[in-house]
Amino acid sequence: MSSSSSPTASRTAAGRPPAAELAALQRRLADFAVARDWGQYHTPKNLAAALSVEASELLEIFQWLTPEQSQRIMTEPDQAARVEDEVADVLAYLLQFCQVLGVDASAALSAKIDRNEGRFPV
Amino acid sequence: MSSSSSPTASRTAAGRPPAAELAALQRRLADFAVARDWGQYHTPKNLAAALSVEASELLEIFQWLTPEQSQRIMTEPDQAARVEDEVADVLAYLLQFCQVLGVDASAALSAKIDRNEGRFPV
Amino acid sequence: MSSSSSPTASRTAAGRPPAAELAALQRRLADFAVARDWGQYHTPKNLAAALSVEASELLEIFQWLTPEQSQRIMTEPDQAARVEDEVADVLAYLLQFCQVLGVDASAALSAKIDRNEGRFPV
Amino acid sequence: MSSSSSPTASRTAAGRPPAAELAALQRRLADFAVARDWGQYHTPKNLAAALSVEASELLEIFQWLTPEQSQRIMTEPDQAARVEDEVADVLAYLLQFCQVLGVDASAALSAKIDRNEGRFPV
Repeated sequence: MSSSSSPTASRTAAGRPPAAELAALQRRLADFAVARDWGQYHTPKNLAAALSVEASELLEIFQWLTPEQSQRIMTEPDQAARVEDEVADVLAYLLQFCQVLGVDASAALSAKIDRNEGRFPV
Repeated sequence: MSSSSSPTASRTAAGRPPAAELAALQRRLADFAVARDWGQYHTPKNLAAALSVEASELLEIFQWLTPEQSQRIMTEPDQAARVEDEVADVLAYLLQFCQVLGVDASAALSAKIDRNEGRFPV
Repeated sequence: MSSSSSPTASRTAAGRPPAAELAALQRRLADFAVARDWGQYHTPKNLAAALSVEASELLEIFQWLTPEQSQRIMTEPDQAARVEDEVADVLAYLLQFCQVLGVDASAALSAKIDRNEGRFPV
Repeated sequence: MSSSSSPTASRTAAGRPPAAELAALQRRLADFAVARDWGQYHTPKNLAAALSVEASELLEIFQWLTPEQSQRIMTEPDQAARVEDEVADVLAYLLQFCQVLGVDASAALSAKIDRNEGRFPV
């Protein structure tokens, strides 16, 4: 079983610590919500809405930027922190949505890539 | 390098094989795009927009459903397939966005949960 | 009282027929929904979700385009038709949302511009 | 020129004057942006992204509410003000998007309702 990732900020692929396993993140998210009795709000529809809202908050960071400014965004500490924060929120709601409905996100994506490799042969 | 995660978390009824780790999925997505020369479209801003669009497609499945109908959605095969397809798309664009910017999504979420456990003590 | 606009396609501001009044559009939308018993789905939350979904469908038209391609989009008939279709959908759900909650969208915007002229003096 | 619509729809407690026509709102929005040199940011793609972001901010108000709580939202002054603020923002970006591309939103919606009355006969 993979260990928990160290909670330092994100890094590039080169020399990255082991990624926290999605299942471990789902358990932490579920424990967090249960401990605070927030599960009552976590219906599939509400979680899909929250995921959509967070994805828009991520997009908002870029909405007035040129393509060139967008490429350099991680060089500005405040913007980099915003990006990581919204990425975390999007992943959080995606994982909670999947847990509530019993969907395995990684497996779903892996299967889709398999299908697309067939649909779009090189 | 971390091993593939074990699928102790949720599975679909079909007992699917172990979920691919996020980094492996990112490599497959990157190889797929490079082989078809699609990388030119994958600017951070475009990927953030695409992620937002897919999150809305996931929400669209639920937009006219009552909370009760939403809870039962995975019992209808056509709807279940749509849900998995959109979950795959959301995860795909999130991972591609993160790869282009060098963001580690799992680490970002793990760090955020750490912070939230401090902000919202039980 | 203004007359209904002629249902030709959209035009530029120069030589435009009178814009259909928002209230008249709201009446047509309400009559349409009542006649088909669709009002049961038109809760404020569902309408807000639908509005968000349509706004994403509008964004989707542009998601892989460069800024320059975006500027020229109305010169391509198929794309122009898509844009008008999604604009209609966004306006439709905004108006239905406003009607259900008793919000006057024009008045809300007019008041906001008043406030912004004070907040951002030239 | 069409007259202002009668405000049979809602008003604020302050007895606001007749709602401004869409074209008048577009002129005010355009003048506001030009005076502050903000037009450089108002590409069609950026405006579509901003519209999508504002639609999500409207949805966010409802994301954890039950259908019943959603129906009563205008009875709470703070929430009512948020709703009107986000409605204004959505309409603002829709109108600016339309102006930049020369799309007549009212005409597009009127035409679409005409088509739908044919597609979904009662």
